[in-house]
Amino acid sequence: MQNDVPAQPGFFPGVDVVTISLPAWTKGFTAFIGGFKTDEDRMRLAIALARENVLRGSGGPFGAAVFEEESGKLVSVGVNSVERLGNSAMHAEVMALMFAQAAAGSFTLRAPGLRPHVLVTSCEPCAMCLGAVLWSGVQRIAWGAPRGAAAAVGFDEGPVFPASYQYLEDRGIRIVRGLLAEEAQEVLRLYQERGGSIYNA
Amino acid sequence: MQNDVPAQPGFFPGVDVVTISLPAWTKGFTAFIGGFKTDEDRMRLAIALARENVLRGSGGPFGAAVFEEESGKLVSVGVNSVERLGNSAMHAEVMALMFAQAAAGSFTLRAPGLRPHVLVTSCEPCAMCLGAVLWSGVQRIAWGAPRGAAAAVGFDEGPVFPASYQYLEDRGIRIVRGLLAEEAQEVLRLYQERGGSIYNA
Repeated sequence: MQNDVPAQPGFFPGVDVVTISLPAWTKGFTAFIGGFKTDEDRMRLAIALARENVLRGSGGPFGAAVFEEESGKLVSVGVNSVERLGNSAMHAEVMALMFAQAAAGSFTLRAPGLRPHVLVTSCEPCAMCLGAVLWSGVQRIAWGAPRGAAAAVGFDEGPVFPASYQYLEDRGIRIVRGLLAEEAQEVLRLYQERGGSIYNA
Repeated sequence: MQNDVPAQPGFFPGVDVVTISLPAWTKGFTAFIGGFKTDEDRMRLAIALARENVLRGSGGPFGAAVFEEESGKLVSVGVNSVERLGNSAMHAEVMALMFAQAAAGSFTLRAPGLRPHVLVTSCEPCAMCLGAVLWSGVQRIAWGAPRGAAAAVGFDEGPVFPASYQYLEDRGIRIVRGLLAEEAQEVLRLYQERGGSIYNA
Protein backbone atom coordinates (compact mmCIF):
# COMPACT_ATOMS: atom_id res chain seq x y z
CA MET A 1 0.00 0.00 0.00
CA GLN A 2 1.31 3.41 -0.98
CA ASN A 3 -0.35 5.71 1.49
CA ASP A 4 1.71 8.67 0.32
CA VAL A 5 0.18 8.60 -3.15
CA PRO A 6 -2.69 11.05 -3.56
CA ALA A 7 -6.19 9.72 -4.01
CA GLN A 8 -7.16 8.97 -7.58
CA PRO A 9 -9.63 11.76 -8.25
CA GLY A 10 -11.53 10.27 -11.17
CA PHE A 11 -12.93 7.24 -9.40
CA PHE A 12 -15.32 8.69 -6.88
CA PRO A 13 -18.18 8.12 -7.03
CA GLY A 14 -17.46 4.99 -9.02
CA VAL A 15 -20.35 2.62 -9.60
CA ASP A 16 -20.14 -0.35 -7.25
CA VAL A 17 -23.72 -1.59 -7.14
CA VAL A 18 -25.80 -2.83 -10.06
CA THR A 19 -29.32 -4.23 -9.87
CA ILE A 20 -30.27 -6.99 -12.29
CA SER A 21 -34.01 -7.38 -12.83
CA LEU A 22 -36.37 -9.11 -15.22
CA PRO A 23 -39.01 -7.13 -17.11
CA ALA A 24 -42.22 -6.98 -15.06
CA TRP A 25 -44.20 -8.86 -17.70
CA THR A 26 -42.25 -12.09 -17.14
CA LYS A 27 -43.87 -12.75 -13.79
CA GLY A 28 -47.43 -12.94 -15.00
CA PHE A 29 -46.43 -14.46 -18.30
CA THR A 30 -44.90 -17.60 -16.91
CA ALA A 31 -47.94 -18.20 -14.75
CA PHE A 32 -49.95 -19.04 -17.85
CA ILE A 33 -47.68 -21.76 -19.10
CA GLY A 34 -47.89 -25.00 -17.22
CA GLY A 35 -46.34 -28.41 -17.41
CA PHE A 36 -42.64 -28.81 -18.05
CA LYS A 37 -42.18 -32.55 -18.09
CA THR A 38 -40.61 -32.82 -21.53
CA ASP A 39 -37.77 -30.95 -23.18
CA GLU A 40 -40.25 -29.70 -25.77
CA ASP A 41 -42.49 -28.23 -23.07
CA ARG A 42 -39.49 -26.48 -21.57
CA MET A 43 -38.25 -25.20 -24.91
CA ARG A 44 -41.70 -23.80 -25.71
CA LEU A 45 -41.41 -21.63 -22.60
CA ALA A 46 -37.93 -20.43 -23.61
CA ILE A 47 -39.19 -19.59 -27.11
CA ALA A 48 -42.34 -17.92 -25.74
CA LEU A 49 -40.16 -15.76 -23.49
CA ALA A 50 -37.97 -14.81 -26.45
CA ARG A 51 -41.01 -13.94 -28.58
CA GLU A 52 -42.65 -11.91 -25.84
CA ASN A 53 -39.39 -10.03 -25.24
CA VAL A 54 -39.51 -8.97 -28.89
CA LEU A 55 -43.22 -8.09 -28.86
CA ARG A 56 -42.87 -6.06 -25.66
CA GLY A 57 -39.74 -4.33 -26.94
CA SER A 58 -37.87 -5.26 -23.79
CA GLY A 59 -34.83 -6.81 -25.45
CA GLY A 60 -33.28 -9.10 -28.00
CA PRO A 61 -34.93 -12.28 -29.34
CA PHE A 62 -33.58 -14.67 -26.75
CA GLY A 63 -35.21 -16.47 -23.81
CA ALA A 64 -34.04 -19.09 -21.35
CA ALA A 65 -35.21 -20.98 -18.27
CA VAL A 66 -33.78 -23.31 -15.64
CA PHE A 67 -35.73 -26.36 -14.48
CA GLU A 68 -35.24 -29.14 -12.02
CA GLU A 69 -34.44 -32.02 -14.31
CA GLU A 70 -36.69 -34.76 -12.97
CA SER A 71 -39.73 -32.92 -11.65
CA GLY A 72 -39.78 -30.29 -14.37
CA LYS A 73 -40.16 -27.61 -11.73
CA LEU A 74 -39.51 -24.15 -13.18
CA VAL A 75 -36.74 -22.51 -11.14
CA SER A 76 -35.98 -19.29 -13.03
CA VAL A 77 -36.32 -17.50 -16.34
CA GLY A 78 -34.21 -15.02 -18.29
CA VAL A 79 -34.71 -12.80 -21.31
CA ASN A 80 -32.11 -10.83 -23.17
CA SER A 81 -31.76 -7.52 -21.33
CA VAL A 82 -28.53 -6.04 -22.72
CA GLU A 83 -30.04 -2.76 -23.86
CA ARG A 84 -32.71 -2.47 -21.17
CA LEU A 85 -30.15 -2.86 -18.37
CA GLY A 86 -27.22 -1.24 -20.19
CA ASN A 87 -25.15 -4.35 -19.52
CA SER A 88 -23.61 -6.49 -22.24
CA ALA A 89 -23.47 -9.57 -19.99
CA MET A 90 -27.24 -9.71 -19.60
CA HIS A 91 -27.94 -12.47 -22.06
CA ALA A 92 -30.97 -14.64 -21.35
CA GLU A 93 -28.84 -17.57 -20.21
CA VAL A 94 -26.72 -15.57 -17.75
CA MET A 95 -29.85 -14.05 -16.23
CA ALA A 96 -31.64 -17.39 -15.87
CA LEU A 97 -28.55 -18.93 -14.26
CA MET A 98 -28.12 -16.00 -11.83
CA PHE A 99 -31.71 -16.16 -10.70
CA ALA A 100 -31.56 -19.96 -10.38
CA GLN A 101 -28.52 -19.70 -8.13
CA ALA A 102 -30.19 -16.98 -6.09
CA ALA A 103 -33.26 -19.21 -5.70
CA ALA A 104 -31.05 -22.14 -4.71
CA GLY A 105 -28.97 -20.02 -2.35
CA SER A 106 -25.70 -21.25 -3.83
CA PHE A 107 -23.11 -20.27 -6.42
CA THR A 108 -23.49 -23.74 -7.89
CA LEU A 109 -26.56 -25.71 -8.85
CA ARG A 110 -24.61 -28.85 -7.93
CA ALA A 111 -24.47 -27.89 -4.26
CA PRO A 112 -25.17 -30.72 -1.80
CA GLY A 113 -28.89 -31.32 -1.40
CA LEU A 114 -29.86 -29.79 -4.73
CA ARG A 115 -31.51 -31.83 -7.47
CA PRO A 116 -30.03 -31.86 -11.00
CA HIS A 117 -30.84 -28.79 -13.08
CA VAL A 118 -31.12 -28.14 -16.82
CA LEU A 119 -30.81 -24.85 -18.73
CA VAL A 120 -33.10 -24.54 -21.76
CA THR A 121 -32.43 -21.65 -24.12
CA SER A 122 -34.08 -20.54 -27.34
CA CYS A 123 -30.77 -20.11 -29.18
CA GLU A 124 -27.32 -21.66 -29.17
CA PRO A 125 -25.28 -19.97 -26.42
CA CYS A 126 -22.58 -17.45 -27.25
CA ALA A 127 -19.02 -17.90 -26.01
CA MET A 128 -19.71 -16.03 -22.76
CA CYS A 129 -22.86 -18.01 -22.00
CA LEU A 130 -21.23 -21.35 -22.77
CA GLY A 131 -18.57 -20.47 -20.23
CA ALA A 132 -21.25 -19.40 -17.76
CA VAL A 133 -22.97 -22.77 -18.20
CA LEU A 134 -19.74 -24.53 -17.26
CA TRP A 135 -19.48 -22.68 -13.94
CA SER A 136 -23.19 -22.73 -13.12
CA GLY A 137 -23.62 -26.32 -11.99
CA VAL A 138 -26.34 -27.26 -14.51
CA GLN A 139 -25.92 -30.83 -15.64
CA ARG A 140 -27.54 -30.41 -19.04
CA ILE A 141 -28.32 -27.71 -21.56
CA ALA A 142 -30.80 -27.75 -24.45
CA TRP A 143 -30.75 -25.07 -27.13
CA GLY A 144 -33.07 -24.24 -30.04
CA ALA A 145 -31.94 -22.13 -32.98
CA PRO A 146 -28.35 -22.74 -34.14
CA ARG A 147 -25.75 -19.97 -34.14
CA GLY A 148 -26.06 -19.71 -37.90
CA ALA A 149 -29.64 -18.55 -37.46
CA ALA A 150 -28.54 -15.82 -35.05
CA ALA A 151 -25.74 -14.83 -37.41
CA ALA A 152 -28.25 -14.65 -40.28
CA VAL A 153 -30.02 -11.77 -38.53
CA GLY A 154 -26.74 -10.13 -37.55
CA PHE A 155 -25.81 -11.43 -34.08
CA ASP A 156 -22.23 -12.48 -33.40
CA GLU A 157 -21.93 -15.59 -31.21
CA GLY A 158 -18.24 -15.35 -30.44
CA PRO A 159 -15.51 -17.99 -30.29
CA VAL A 160 -17.36 -21.28 -29.82
CA PHE A 161 -15.80 -24.35 -31.41
CA PRO A 162 -16.54 -28.09 -31.43
CA ALA A 163 -13.78 -28.38 -28.83
CA SER A 164 -15.70 -25.94 -26.61
CA TYR A 165 -18.65 -28.32 -26.44
CA GLN A 166 -16.32 -31.25 -25.95
CA TYR A 167 -14.81 -29.42 -22.97
CA LEU A 168 -18.21 -29.17 -21.32
CA GLU A 169 -19.14 -32.76 -22.17
CA ASP A 170 -15.87 -33.98 -20.69
CA ARG A 171 -16.98 -32.34 -17.44
CA GLY A 172 -20.31 -34.16 -17.40
CA ILE A 173 -22.57 -31.56 -19.02
CA ARG A 174 -24.88 -33.08 -21.62
CA ILE A 175 -25.92 -31.02 -24.66
CA VAL A 176 -29.17 -31.18 -26.65
CA ARG A 177 -28.82 -29.28 -29.93
CA GLY A 178 -31.44 -27.76 -32.24
CA LEU A 179 -34.54 -28.56 -30.19
CA LEU A 180 -37.62 -27.01 -31.90
CA ALA A 181 -35.10 -25.11 -34.00
CA GLU A 182 -37.68 -23.92 -36.54
CA GLU A 183 -39.95 -22.36 -33.91
CA ALA A 184 -36.94 -20.81 -32.21
CA GLN A 185 -35.60 -19.40 -35.47
CA GLU A 186 -39.00 -17.84 -36.20
CA VAL A 187 -38.48 -15.46 -33.26
CA LEU A 188 -35.17 -14.31 -34.73
CA ARG A 189 -36.94 -13.55 -38.00
CA LEU A 190 -39.70 -11.70 -36.15
CA TYR A 191 -37.07 -9.51 -34.47
CA GLN A 192 -35.47 -8.77 -37.81
CA GLU A 193 -38.84 -7.91 -39.41
CA ARG A 194 -39.54 -5.47 -36.63
CA GLY A 195 -36.17 -3.81 -37.11
CA GLY A 196 -34.77 -4.80 -33.72
CA SER A 197 -31.29 -3.48 -33.05
CA ILE A 198 -28.21 -5.67 -33.26
CA TYR A 199 -26.32 -4.57 -30.16
CA ASN A 200 -23.13 -6.51 -30.78
CA ALA A 201 -22.72 -6.07 -34.53
CA MET B 1 -50.58 -17.85 -24.82
CA GLN B 2 -52.44 -20.78 -23.30
CA ASN B 3 -54.76 -19.13 -20.84
CA ASP B 4 -56.57 -22.37 -20.13
CA VAL B 5 -53.46 -23.98 -18.69
CA PRO B 6 -53.26 -23.80 -14.91
CA ALA B 7 -50.59 -21.65 -13.30
CA GLN B 8 -47.26 -23.35 -12.76
CA PRO B 9 -47.24 -23.66 -8.98
CA GLY B 10 -43.54 -24.06 -8.35
CA PHE B 11 -42.40 -20.75 -9.74
CA PHE B 12 -43.83 -18.20 -7.35
CA PRO B 13 -42.07 -16.49 -5.75
CA GLY B 14 -39.30 -16.95 -8.27
CA VAL B 15 -36.25 -14.74 -7.91
CA ASP B 16 -36.28 -11.96 -10.49
CA VAL B 17 -34.02 -9.33 -8.93
CA VAL B 18 -30.37 -9.72 -7.99
CA THR B 19 -28.09 -7.02 -6.60
CA ILE B 20 -24.43 -7.07 -7.60
CA SER B 21 -22.14 -5.18 -5.23
CA LEU B 22 -18.45 -4.85 -4.52
CA PRO B 23 -17.07 -5.52 -1.04
CA ALA B 24 -17.13 -2.31 0.98
CA TRP B 25 -13.33 -2.27 1.36
CA THR B 26 -12.78 -1.66 -2.36
CA LYS B 27 -13.99 1.92 -2.18
CA GLY B 28 -11.43 3.17 0.27
CA PHE B 29 -8.75 0.85 -1.03
CA THR B 30 -8.60 2.26 -4.51
CA ALA B 31 -8.33 5.79 -3.13
CA PHE B 32 -4.80 5.01 -1.96
CA ILE B 33 -3.46 3.98 -5.31
CA GLY B 34 -2.87 6.77 -7.74
CA GLY B 35 -1.51 7.19 -11.22
CA PHE B 36 -2.50 4.77 -13.93
CA LYS B 37 -0.57 6.04 -16.90
CA THR B 38 1.25 2.81 -17.72
CA ASP B 39 0.04 -0.75 -18.11
CA GLU B 40 2.23 -1.72 -15.18
CA ASP B 41 0.57 0.88 -12.93
CA ARG B 42 -2.83 -0.48 -13.93
CA MET B 43 -1.82 -4.08 -13.43
CA ARG B 44 -0.48 -3.28 -9.96
CA LEU B 45 -3.98 -2.12 -9.02
CA ALA B 46 -5.57 -5.31 -10.42
CA ILE B 47 -3.06 -7.44 -8.49
CA ALA B 48 -3.51 -5.37 -5.32
CA LEU B 49 -7.28 -5.87 -5.57
CA ALA B 50 -6.77 -9.63 -5.99
CA ARG B 51 -4.43 -9.78 -3.00
CA GLU B 52 -6.71 -7.72 -0.79
CA ASN B 53 -9.67 -9.91 -1.77
CA VAL B 54 -7.71 -12.88 -0.44
CA LEU B 55 -6.54 -11.13 2.73
CA ARG B 56 -10.05 -9.87 3.51
CA GLY B 57 -11.57 -13.27 2.78
CA SER B 58 -14.08 -11.71 0.41
CA GLY B 59 -13.43 -13.98 -2.56
CA GLY B 60 -11.09 -15.72 -4.95
CA PRO B 61 -7.61 -14.44 -5.88
CA PHE B 62 -8.64 -12.37 -8.88
CA GLY B 63 -8.90 -8.61 -9.43
CA ALA B 64 -9.64 -6.44 -12.44
CA ALA B 65 -10.15 -2.81 -13.39
CA VAL B 66 -11.29 -0.77 -16.38
CA PHE B 67 -9.47 2.41 -17.39
CA GLU B 68 -9.82 5.03 -20.03
CA GLU B 69 -6.98 4.14 -22.34
CA GLU B 70 -5.34 7.49 -22.94
CA SER B 71 -5.89 9.41 -19.71
CA GLY B 72 -5.48 6.39 -17.44
CA LYS B 73 -8.65 7.40 -15.61
CA LEU B 74 -9.90 4.58 -13.38
CA VAL B 75 -13.49 3.79 -14.38
CA SER B 76 -14.36 0.67 -12.36
CA VAL B 77 -12.94 -2.23 -10.40
CA GLY B 78 -13.97 -5.84 -9.84
CA VAL B 79 -12.94 -8.62 -7.49
CA ASN B 80 -13.94 -12.24 -7.62
CA SER B 81 -17.24 -12.48 -5.74
CA VAL B 82 -18.59 -15.91 -6.70
CA GLU B 83 -18.99 -17.22 -3.18
CA ARG B 84 -19.77 -13.90 -1.50
CA LEU B 85 -22.65 -13.19 -3.91
CA GLY B 86 -23.65 -16.82 -4.53
CA ASN B 87 -23.30 -16.24 -8.26
CA SER B 88 -20.90 -18.16 -10.48
CA ALA B 89 -20.78 -15.38 -13.09
CA MET B 90 -19.25 -12.89 -10.64
CA HIS B 91 -15.68 -13.13 -11.80
CA ALA B 92 -13.55 -10.01 -11.36
CA GLU B 93 -13.65 -9.20 -15.07
CA VAL B 94 -17.45 -9.46 -15.43
CA MET B 95 -17.91 -7.24 -12.39
CA ALA B 96 -15.46 -4.58 -13.60
CA LEU B 97 -17.10 -4.54 -17.04
CA MET B 98 -20.63 -4.28 -15.57
CA PHE B 99 -19.68 -1.36 -13.36
CA ALA B 100 -17.81 0.35 -16.21
CA GLN B 101 -20.89 0.12 -18.43
CA ALA B 102 -23.07 1.40 -15.61
CA ALA B 103 -20.68 4.33 -15.13
CA ALA B 104 -20.71 5.00 -18.88
CA GLY B 105 -24.49 4.62 -19.11
CA SER B 106 -24.26 2.23 -22.03
CA PHE B 107 -24.20 -1.49 -22.77
CA THR B 108 -21.07 -0.88 -24.80
CA LEU B 109 -17.88 0.99 -23.97
CA ARG B 110 -17.63 1.82 -27.67
CA ALA B 111 -20.77 3.97 -27.57
CA PRO B 112 -20.53 7.29 -29.43
CA GLY B 113 -18.77 9.93 -27.34
CA LEU B 114 -16.91 7.45 -25.15
CA ARG B 115 -13.13 7.27 -25.13
CA PRO B 116 -11.35 3.93 -25.70
CA HIS B 117 -11.28 1.63 -22.66
CA VAL B 118 -8.95 -1.14 -21.50
CA LEU B 119 -9.64 -4.02 -19.11
CA VAL B 120 -6.69 -5.02 -16.92
CA THR B 121 -7.01 -8.27 -14.99
CA SER B 122 -4.69 -10.09 -12.65
CA CYS B 123 -5.17 -13.47 -14.37
CA GLU B 124 -5.87 -14.77 -17.85
CA PRO B 125 -9.63 -14.67 -18.41
CA CYS B 126 -11.72 -17.82 -18.36
CA ALA B 127 -13.95 -18.75 -21.29
CA MET B 128 -16.91 -16.82 -19.90
CA CYS B 129 -14.90 -13.67 -19.26
CA LEU B 130 -13.21 -13.77 -22.65
CA GLY B 131 -16.67 -13.83 -24.21
CA ALA B 132 -17.75 -11.00 -21.92
CA VAL B 133 -14.75 -8.94 -23.09
CA LEU B 134 -15.87 -9.38 -26.69
CA TRP B 135 -19.33 -7.90 -26.00
CA SER B 136 -18.16 -5.20 -23.59
CA GLY B 137 -16.72 -2.68 -26.02
CA VAL B 138 -13.24 -2.55 -24.48
CA GLN B 139 -10.61 -2.12 -27.15
CA ARG B 140 -7.78 -3.80 -25.29
CA ILE B 141 -7.21 -6.28 -22.49
CA ALA B 142 -4.08 -6.91 -20.43
CA TRP B 143 -3.77 -9.95 -18.19
CA GLY B 144 -1.20 -11.06 -15.63
CA ALA B 145 -0.87 -14.68 -14.50
CA PRO B 146 -1.36 -17.29 -17.24
CA ARG B 147 -4.14 -19.90 -17.05
CA GLY B 148 -1.57 -22.52 -16.17
CA ALA B 149 -0.88 -20.65 -12.93
CA ALA B 150 -4.58 -20.68 -12.06
CA ALA B 151 -4.79 -24.36 -12.96
CA ALA B 152 -1.79 -25.06 -10.73
CA VAL B 153 -3.79 -24.00 -7.67
CA GLY B 154 -6.92 -25.83 -8.88
CA PHE B 155 -8.98 -23.35 -10.91
CA ASP B 156 -10.48 -24.45 -14.21
CA GLU B 157 -10.35 -21.77 -16.92
CA GLY B 158 -12.69 -23.42 -19.40
CA PRO B 159 -12.54 -23.77 -23.18
CA VAL B 160 -10.15 -21.03 -24.33
CA PHE B 161 -8.03 -21.79 -27.38
CA PRO B 162 -5.56 -19.83 -29.54
CA ALA B 163 -8.46 -19.42 -32.00
CA SER B 164 -10.49 -17.75 -29.21
CA TYR B 165 -7.91 -14.99 -28.93
CA GLN B 166 -7.65 -14.74 -32.69
CA TYR B 167 -11.42 -14.25 -32.81
CA LEU B 168 -11.15 -11.22 -30.52
CA GLU B 169 -8.12 -9.83 -32.32
CA ASP B 170 -9.94 -10.12 -35.65
CA ARG B 171 -12.59 -7.84 -34.15
CA GLY B 172 -10.09 -5.19 -33.16
CA ILE B 173 -9.40 -6.14 -29.53
CA ARG B 174 -5.70 -6.04 -28.67
CA ILE B 175 -4.31 -8.48 -26.10
CA VAL B 176 -1.37 -8.00 -23.71
CA ARG B 177 -0.35 -11.32 -22.16
CA GLY B 178 1.57 -12.10 -18.99
CA LEU B 179 2.04 -8.55 -17.68
CA LEU B 180 3.71 -8.66 -14.23
CA ALA B 181 2.95 -12.37 -14.32
CA GLU B 182 5.19 -13.23 -11.36
CA GLU B 183 3.55 -10.71 -9.03
CA ALA B 184 0.12 -11.84 -10.22
CA GLN B 185 0.95 -15.49 -9.69
CA GLU B 186 2.11 -14.74 -6.15
CA VAL B 187 -1.50 -13.93 -5.21
CA LEU B 188 -2.64 -17.31 -6.46
CA ARG B 189 -0.02 -18.97 -4.26
CA LEU B 190 -1.09 -16.84 -1.30
CA TYR B 191 -4.67 -18.02 -1.76
CA GLN B 192 -3.52 -21.62 -1.88
CA GLU B 193 -1.38 -21.22 1.25
CA ARG B 194 -4.37 -19.83 3.10
CA GLY B 195 -6.50 -22.77 2.03
CA GLY B 196 -8.91 -20.74 -0.08
CA SER B 197 -11.72 -22.76 -1.61
CA ILE B 198 -11.71 -23.76 -5.29
CA TYR B 199 -15.33 -23.09 -6.19
CA ASN B 200 -15.24 -24.53 -9.70
CA ALA B 201 -13.08 -27.59 -9.19
